[in-house]
Amino acid sequence: MAHPNPIRFGIIGCAEIARKLARAIGLAPNADIIAVGSRSKNKARRFIADNGLSVDYVTAYGSYEEVLEDSRVDAVYLPLPTSLHVRWATAAAGKGKHVLLEKPTALCVSDLDRILEACEAGGVQFMDSTMWMHHPRTGKMTELLADPTRFGQLRTVNSIFSFSANPDFLQNDIRVKPDLDALGSLGDAGWYCIRSILWAADYQLPSKAIALHNPVFNPAGVLLSCSSSLIWDDGKLATFHCSFLEHLTMEVTAVGSRGTLHLSDFVIPFEENSANFSFASDSGFNELVTGWQRLPSQHVVATDLPQEARMVSEFARMVGEIKNSGSKPVSKWPEITRKTQLVVDAVKTSIDKGFVPVDVVG
Amino acid sequence: MAHPNPIRFGIIGCAEIARKLARAIGLAPNADIIAVGSRSKNKARRFIADNGLSVDYVTAYGSYEEVLEDSRVDAVYLPLPTSLHVRWATAAAGKGKHVLLEKPTALCVSDLDRILEACEAGGVQFMDSTMWMHHPRTGKMTELLADPTRFGQLRTVNSIFSFSANPDFLQNDIRVKPDLDALGSLGDAGWYCIRSILWAADYQLPSKAIALHNPVFNPAGVLLSCSSSLIWDDGKLATFHCSFLEHLTMEVTAVGSRGTLHLSDFVIPFEENSANFSFASDSGFNELVTGWQRLPSQHVVATDLPQEARMVSEFARMVGEIKNSGSKPVSKWPEITRKTQLVVDAVKTSIDKGFVPVDVVG
Repeated sequence: MAHPNPIRFGIIGCAEIARKLARAIGLAPNADIIAVGSRSKNKARRFIADNGLSVDYVTAYGSYEEVLEDSRVDAVYLPLPTSLHVRWATAAAGKGKHVLLEKPTALCVSDLDRILEACEAGGVQFMDSTMWMHHPRTGKMTELLADPTRFGQLRTVNSIFSFSANPDFLQNDIRVKPDLDALGSLGDAGWYCIRSILWAADYQLPSKAIALHNPVFNPAGVLLSCSSSLIWDDGKLATFHCSFLEHLTMEVTAVGSRGTLHLSDFVIPFEENSANFSFASDSGFNELVTGWQRLPSQHVVATDLPQEARMVSEFARMVGEIKNSGSKPVSKWPEITRKTQLVVDAVKTSIDKGFVPVDVVG
Repeated sequence: MAHPNPIRFGIIGCAEIARKLARAIGLAPNADIIAVGSRSKNKARRFIADNGLSVDYVTAYGSYEEVLEDSRVDAVYLPLPTSLHVRWATAAAGKGKHVLLEKPTALCVSDLDRILEACEAGGVQFMDSTMWMHHPRTGKMTELLADPTRFGQLRTVNSIFSFSANPDFLQNDIRVKPDLDALGSLGDAGWYCIRSILWAADYQLPSKAIALHNPVFNPAGVLLSCSSSLIWDDGKLATFHCSFLEHLTMEVTAVGSRGTLHLSDFVIPFEENSANFSFASDSGFNELVTGWQRLPSQHVVATDLPQEARMVSEFARMVGEIKNSGSKPVSKWPEITRKTQLVVDAVKTSIDKGFVPVDVVG
């Protein structure tokens, strides 16, 4: 899968998730890793060795700055804790590096705006690392949701992403630390739920977020579990639930005037090489209402590359267009990110204010 | 499937749903129809002919009273509009007839209590006609939800029941008429959602209902669509959505600390002879978080009789125990009905008061 001119990535931070992305960059036909930076050079070296990267080809750096100073690096992947995103994403953009940023992208939309403004000023591509967006299943489902004769108009979405964190996670993971990932389960699992809802709504922002009355906080005040409703002025409604305290669940149900879409593994497909979903259109009952007519059908979508490698490949493609053809950065991805962050913020505000309706203002 | 001493049913009212129940009574091995009463004798006769019942065996009556006066009738099935339930269910109980009552059972819990008190005073069995409760699939799922090693403790339930009513329904069906079924979609589709949530919670009542901000009313003030959250003091949360305005959808997702249950046809199974659901327990990710371990498994549960015939059979069995063995009416069913009605009432009150939390007081 050699590419004549692959996009050269630096990875900044050796978080667990970076292992998955390192593999993905290796699998993407148009991308290479050439640098790994950590606060400790030994840790960067160990990451390179542990992930089967070539020590001759990939430089280990003992600081994040050195990755940004490496003129060979085209783009950086930033798996750092959210509280460090503004500092390092703006620094990367300032050095002309394209930015692939882990989610949640920021602690609030004003922080995200600093990142997006730096990317715009630097002329670099920004994209958040929401992998499932890039699975071909998502493209297939998007087509169906957009089909007025099969799905009609969207009315309702319910999204659930929960997993049962172990005691070590609940004590030590960055996602339960107020100084690192203060949005907790809302920024982590909730990010995916909100994104799925916006995706189903063709990225039309809801007018209001109204959190439900069941948030669970840890003693440090970080959300471990919460839920919210989102409403649109045209009557659409979405609900979501995100939690570190329940069995692993990844449901999306989108109901339109003429169709219903359902899947149970939307964030990470059950298996890497193909993924399925169910879709029903114009279903009804038989005459005595003892069974259905036009049952939901199962759709299976194969993928040549894992969704995270497709994400890297799409990001590298856009970077290549900018680097080699003088194109402008694609605005779709930062726009989607910003909408997601706006909804995260509104849900958090609704929780903080006692479950009142909060306007989602773009 | 002859039974030496079948329970003899009278059907009061020839609503569309009565056709399904007439067939179910015919299929149930321990039940027979012997009378059909309508406001017009001709209509009762036509119902008998149209549903393949024997004119020699089944008496057509031109009034509801005559069915209750027929001393051969053990039990009545009442598919009447909800606004008539108090009058006719109490009259039936007063005549010593056992009562199988369509849902919603009453317009409010105080009305239901009049019915339940009449049944208790008359020593007759009461059961509401919530058919899916009687499918063997429900029993199998109940076992799994009750298993602490497989499902753990319930945390979250989401339930959706919607269907896309045609213009004729939206103009003329009793379920959109304020004087007949004033609870609209909440009493109809919402009844099933609330029941599914209570079922998943082993009938522990939530402490509060808080309706979501999206009800749709028709010009006469009847709910066509609405949603609500339900919360328990131990942190459990449920949400549901019920609508006449969306594509046919029947989802239940129940998430526990150790397991997840999902099904997409909970009210009326896709097919009559068997029904499935998915269940996952202790699922996790593989090492690089690129797929799942312990995938949800599909369970298929066959049934010898349609769920509505099993419902009739169970009701007839209880009636037979009372009639032939001097047993007392089984209290489980009226208790479940009353809890469902209490939640319906609380959701309606929350909507009417502007989406405030409303205590669910048993």
